[in-house]
Amino acid sequence: MTEKPFQDYYPDHMAQCYGCGRLNEHGYQIKSVWDKDKPGESVAYFTPQAHHTAIPGYVYGGLLASLIDCHGTGTAAAAAYRAAGRPMDSEPALRFLTGSLHVEYLKPTPLGPTLEIRGRVKEIKGRKIVIEEWILADGVITVRGEVVAVQVPDRLVRELLESVGK
Amino acid sequence: MTEKPFQDYYPDHMAQCYGCGRLNEHGYQIKSVWDKDKPGESVAYFTPQAHHTAIPGYVYGGLLASLIDCHGTGTAAAAAYRAAGRPMDSEPALRFLTGSLHVEYLKPTPLGPTLEIRGRVKEIKGRKIVIEEWILADGVITVRGEVVAVQVPDRLVRELLESVGK
Repeated sequence: MTEKPFQDYYPDHMAQCYGCGRLNEHGYQIKSVWDKDKPGESVAYFTPQAHHTAIPGYVYGGLLASLIDCHGTGTAAAAAYRAAGRPMDSEPALRFLTGSLHVEYLKPTPLGPTLEIRGRVKEIKGRKIVIEEWILADGVITVRGEVVAVQVPDRLVRELLESVGK
Repeated sequence: MTEKPFQDYYPDHMAQCYGCGRLNEHGYQIKSVWDKDKPGESVAYFTPQAHHTAIPGYVYGGLLASLIDCHGTGTAAAAAYRAAGRPMDSEPALRFLTGSLHVEYLKPTPLGPTLEIRGRVKEIKGRKIVIEEWILADGVITVRGEVVAVQVPDRLVRELLESVGK
C-alpha cells in the first residue's frame, strides 16, 4: 500500500496552494511522505520542467525555494500530528503556515533529473516547528534550507478567508 | 524617457531565468529599476495571477521568495556597476547568482493588488553583495527578505553552460 502524502490530508481551503495544493491545477502539487527506510526523514520528489531554468541547464532558485517551503510546512504538519500521537485526518486540525524561509544554494542544480527533497524536524518550540531540509540532484546535495512553520488555529485561517470573501 | 530595467541588460545566456529572464516566455519577467525619488532604493512591480495562491485570497510564499530572489540579484548587479562607475552594458561583464535567500513572512500578502518589491544594498563584501528587500501590498509591508548575491566570472558561467551542453 502506498502511503498517503501529507498534503492529501489538507482540507479543501488548505489545498489551493501553488506549491502543494492538490486542487491547484496550475501548481507544483508537491507530495511528501515519511521515508520508511530513514526514520524521522520526510521525502518528496519533483521533476522541474524545461522552463524552470536559472541559467540554461540549471534549475531556477525560486522553484527550489518553493520546494523547500512546501515540503517544510508539510513535514511540520505531519510532525505535529505524530508528536500528538494522532492521525492526520483527526480533529482538532493542526494547520501550519510559513513564518520564515532560508535557502542556501551550495552549487548549481542541474535541470533534468528528478529532484529529491528531504526534511527532518530540527526543533519544536511552542507553536513553531523548525524543519531542516536539503535537495539532491543525481544523489548530490545542491541546496540546504530551513523553514520555520507556524501553527495557526483553524479559526484564524477561516477569519483570513472571510476577510477576503472566500 | 523610461529607464531600462536592470534585467534587460543581461546577455542572452543570463536572460532565460524563470524569475527575471526577458527570454523566458513562461516566467515572471520581473523588471527592476532604481527609484529616482528614493536614492539607493530599487523597485519592481509584479501582479500575481489568480493561481499564485497560498490559502485562497493570499499570495503563495514561494512566489514572494522568487520576487525577493530575482529583484535581489538584479539590484546587486546594478549596484556593482554603479559602484564601479560603469554603465550596465560595459565590459567586463559583472554576473551575479544567488548564494542564499532569506524570507520573513510578516503577515499574509493579499492576492489581487500589484505588489511593490523594494531593495537596497546592505553590504558589499568582496564578491558578495547583500541586498535587503521588502514587499508591499496596498502600501503595507508584508514580507522582508535578504539575498546574498555572489559575483561569478563570466568564464565560470560559460563553463557551467558548456558542462550541460548549452
